Amino acid sequence: MRRIRVGLAQINPTVGAIEANARLVLDWMERARAAGCDLVAFPELALTGYPPEDLLFKTAFIEANLRALADVARQSRGITAVVGYVDKRDDIFNAAAVLHDGAQVGTYHKQYLPNYGVFDENRYFQSGTEAPVFVVGDTVLAANICEDIWYPTGPTTLQALAGAELVVTINASPYHAGKAQFREKMLATRAADDLVCLAFVNTVGGQDELVFDGQSFIFNEKGERIARGRAFEEDLVVADLDLDEIFRARLHDSRRRKEKLRAAEPTRISLPSLPLREKRKPPAHEIQALEPVEEIYQALVLGTRDYVTKIGYKHVVIGLSGGIDSALVAAVAVDALGAANVTGVTMPSPFSSLGTRRDAARLAKNLGIDMLRVPITGVLKAYKRALAAAFKGVKEDVTEENLQARIRGNYLMALSNKFGWLVLNTGNKSEIAVGYTTLYGDMAGGFAVIKDCPKTLVYKLSEHANARARRELIPETVFTRPPSAELRPDQTDQDTLPPYAELDAILECYVEGDQGVADIVARGFDAQTVKRVIAMVDRNEYKRRQGAIGIKITPRAFGKDWRLPIVNKFRE
Amino acid sequence: MRRIRVGLAQINPTVGAIEANARLVLDWMERARAAGCDLVAFPELALTGYPPEDLLFKTAFIEANLRALADVARQSRGITAVVGYVDKRDDIFNAAAVLHDGAQVGTYHKQYLPNYGVFDENRYFQSGTEAPVFVVGDTVLAANICEDIWYPTGPTTLQALAGAELVVTINASPYHAGKAQFREKMLATRAADDLVCLAFVNTVGGQDELVFDGQSFIFNEKGERIARGRAFEEDLVVADLDLDEIFRARLHDSRRRKEKLRAAEPTRISLPSLPLREKRKPPAHEIQALEPVEEIYQALVLGTRDYVTKIGYKHVVIGLSGGIDSALVAAVAVDALGAANVTGVTMPSPFSSLGTRRDAARLAKNLGIDMLRVPITGVLKAYKRALAAAFKGVKEDVTEENLQARIRGNYLMALSNKFGWLVLNTGNKSEIAVGYTTLYGDMAGGFAVIKDCPKTLVYKLSEHANARARRELIPETVFTRPPSAELRPDQTDQDTLPPYAELDAILECYVEGDQGVADIVARGFDAQTVKRVIAMVDRNEYKRRQGAIGIKITPRAFGKDWRLPIVNKFRE
Repeated sequence: MRRIRVGLAQINPTVGAIEANARLVLDWMERARAAGCDLVAFPELALTGYPPEDLLFKTAFIEANLRALADVARQSRGITAVVGYVDKRDDIFNAAAVLHDGAQVGTYHKQYLPNYGVFDENRYFQSGTEAPVFVVGDTVLAANICEDIWYPTGPTTLQALAGAELVVTINASPYHAGKAQFREKMLATRAADDLVCLAFVNTVGGQDELVFDGQSFIFNEKGERIARGRAFEEDLVVADLDLDEIFRARLHDSRRRKEKLRAAEPTRISLPSLPLREKRKPPAHEIQALEPVEEIYQALVLGTRDYVTKIGYKHVVIGLSGGIDSALVAAVAVDALGAANVTGVTMPSPFSSLGTRRDAARLAKNLGIDMLRVPITGVLKAYKRALAAAFKGVKEDVTEENLQARIRGNYLMALSNKFGWLVLNTGNKSEIAVGYTTLYGDMAGGFAVIKDCPKTLVYKLSEHANARARRELIPETVFTRPPSAELRPDQTDQDTLPPYAELDAILECYVEGDQGVADIVARGFDAQTVKRVIAMVDRNEYKRRQGAIGIKITPRAFGKDWRLPIVNKFRE
Repeated sequence: MRRIRVGLAQINPTVGAIEANARLVLDWMERARAAGCDLVAFPELALTGYPPEDLLFKTAFIEANLRALADVARQSRGITAVVGYVDKRDDIFNAAAVLHDGAQVGTYHKQYLPNYGVFDENRYFQSGTEAPVFVVGDTVLAANICEDIWYPTGPTTLQALAGAELVVTINASPYHAGKAQFREKMLATRAADDLVCLAFVNTVGGQDELVFDGQSFIFNEKGERIARGRAFEEDLVVADLDLDEIFRARLHDSRRRKEKLRAAEPTRISLPSLPLREKRKPPAHEIQALEPVEEIYQALVLGTRDYVTKIGYKHVVIGLSGGIDSALVAAVAVDALGAANVTGVTMPSPFSSLGTRRDAARLAKNLGIDMLRVPITGVLKAYKRALAAAFKGVKEDVTEENLQARIRGNYLMALSNKFGWLVLNTGNKSEIAVGYTTLYGDMAGGFAVIKDCPKTLVYKLSEHANARARRELIPETVFTRPPSAELRPDQTDQDTLPPYAELDAILECYVEGDQGVADIVARGFDAQTVKRVIAMVDRNEYKRRQGAIGIKITPRAFGKDWRLPIVNKFRE
């Protein structure tokens, strides 16, 4: 019986940390050897981290990555490995090196370069043209990269027709809610269509606004999942493949035999088989998929932890208003960094209600975090005094509301400067969309944890935070009190905005769906409301452009995948 | 004698203002008729404005642009016109419509889609595959778009071989210093190589961070420039072409005849000639190119004017420190908007010297702008009082310096909120590069006029501002005083930074040249200094990401053409 043991090393590299990434690859290669793997695969651009963006224009960066690959290749004794790196020929390529027993024996260049959404790969890479297969002893393997697998007539099919029994697809597939299920479904189809085992390894970790969820998996030639890795954690996903099964399945597939004749025969690289490893039964590696809300929650936790620690911070500071947004951010921060590394700050004004003040204190107590109290009244008075001459004869308006928000922003930044704490911003997607925020005020901060979470989702995530803790973290009254910025007496968000359920539904159509006024009204929303919401979104592009980055969890976040001009007169 | 009169309408459309852009096209079409033009050409994507970015994902946007084109086509009676728009087939195309006597008679789809620098055209468009020529009476014409003309074996050559005597290239070619000369040189070569008249029409105006300089031109088949349009202004560039000259030149070109046989014959669309117009001698249209510093100055003026007015503002406010950066920005703002629409604000602290206070006042007087005075001392004291408990036992440091900058930022934003003035930011490229700036402090503002001007260039532009005004605008002492942020006693920029001449030279290598430490040191710079500068640039990516947009005037600005990750451990 022909058997191969495959290991998928879903590691968490850091962009630009090429030497450290190489050490990480070698560490997990050793774990794969210890687990008896014949082959181990690492994610797309594992050596550089993904996405390296304009670092790819630097010659020194490309050279450092090639040196690291050579080093990893030398240390690949006794195993076959697939490692993502940047190859350099006449141009640069997003590449998968095939390493075998101490040497690089081949390379694959990504053919389909994504240039939509958050991706800009045409900016950097040349497309590959060849899809080689590798014969290791009596096993036929092939590798390709991420986007390549999404095309039904792409390299996977070609490699399978050329005899590949196992196709390894190395990925850096950014998370958004619902994507993992979609991805598995598509790959199951591809495996069954091509009668090939598919091993999908995905990177894990946060990189700026992106989170990679891991959840690597292996499908057999029937399209059945035989292993799945952890979500949002490093993991080695191990499975044994029965290659004779594939042989038998293909023997009886006449369509396949016919098409094979037509397919161009790709390069075939033959390699000696390696000495058999002692193989104990591998651990059953079938991690359950997470529930949808828990999956998003974990994305926020990992995205926050990785951003904070990868830029070299340990401790964060959060303005606690007593509202739901800052409560959720604080809960996520505690899960990401530990309560000892989170400080809350309450910054009351004359308009802060007793209820919100109490809730902020109770939240801090529930989470076990330190809380500072720095009132804004004195500073606000000083501002009014200083600006009195300039503002003479003009009424108070939104200016004074914004001043309050900006004093709070300044306090948080002063604490950041003084103690080396990172300010976590607490704005949600709904308010960022319509500009119900103050630039340099509540928009201040280095990282916007829930930037891509609509307000209605913020409530769900907050309920979930309590449920997973099995106790009250976020006080009940935070859920029941009407949302308010508390910048003037008796203010609520709904004075200015439509109810959040309606607002979020309209925003999803406009922001994620690129629908126009007519489309959205046709779905049953009030025309005046739709126009008003769209005008608010468009008018506030300048604010978003100066906002902190934050974690993408929807198909379209306000980040790399939202590129709207500020000067823009289109209103339909 | 076969003659054709060509008009290039270098207009200033606004992104998204599709109906207004169509009216602008019709207005200039009428001017072209009045000038006796047989053909008039408009810039790339004239109907949508350039670049429309993700507006291109909206069906309603594409449809509105098609309706506008149909309207313009109907009104093209008695003339041939080339108009940039978005075409929609199975996908969308960056297209040039050929209109003739009241109807659209053809279209050209851009073949080379730029996806580098500030461009993301692969994100939106499909590439065209056909390069038709149009026979209008006895004249053979063709059109192509921007990037297409840069390829020596691209559509221009094909169209010329297929008989085109005039190739119209429609452009939205973003300005940077030195580009216009390079562009003309390249097109002169292309015209002479292909023995074809080339009419290059470029858009004009500011769009977010980009400025388009106009400077349209026409080359004859010898590669001689026979007309050039104004820089940074709308213009109709008119010239008469002698087509018999081209015919004669080609008759004797044997290389050409040989290659013609090899060339695939493109689509040929024949149209009746239009009634002859009365043609007086066209005005000699040969605008002198601007001197390099004046060209940059005008780019700043137009970029500022268009940003401010296109987003619907009239009036700007600028913090005047008495330093060179704010002085230059104020001078540019006055040229862009008029002195009545510019307000200066001086915001002295105990560290502000008498010299800078006097200079700020004198500058305002020289420019004829209003100046407000809002001291920061009282508010700073209030902040220190409010934060005293939190900061107990900790020394004063950069925190208190940043607070001063942030109070000033808040004042400017308060004036903006209260009076509807746009805050112009005064940061230069050198300080933005190394992060010698305070987030939400001196980085506050809607538009950063000199964001892409290194400090050494700021001095040159400031001298030039005085020279072109033929009087002192910026006081002499502003030039001679050592640059200082004045945030603590006797502070100067050079306490922290290398001398600006050295800093700017290193930054040019690193930021514009993508050179690494080794490359830059090899040019003779001190290794420690180079490493320190590069580390500062990398470490401050998070600040730049939250900075205001500003006008690109170098080959690489901190904007769309600078896409570096914040989490980035690469240090070579």
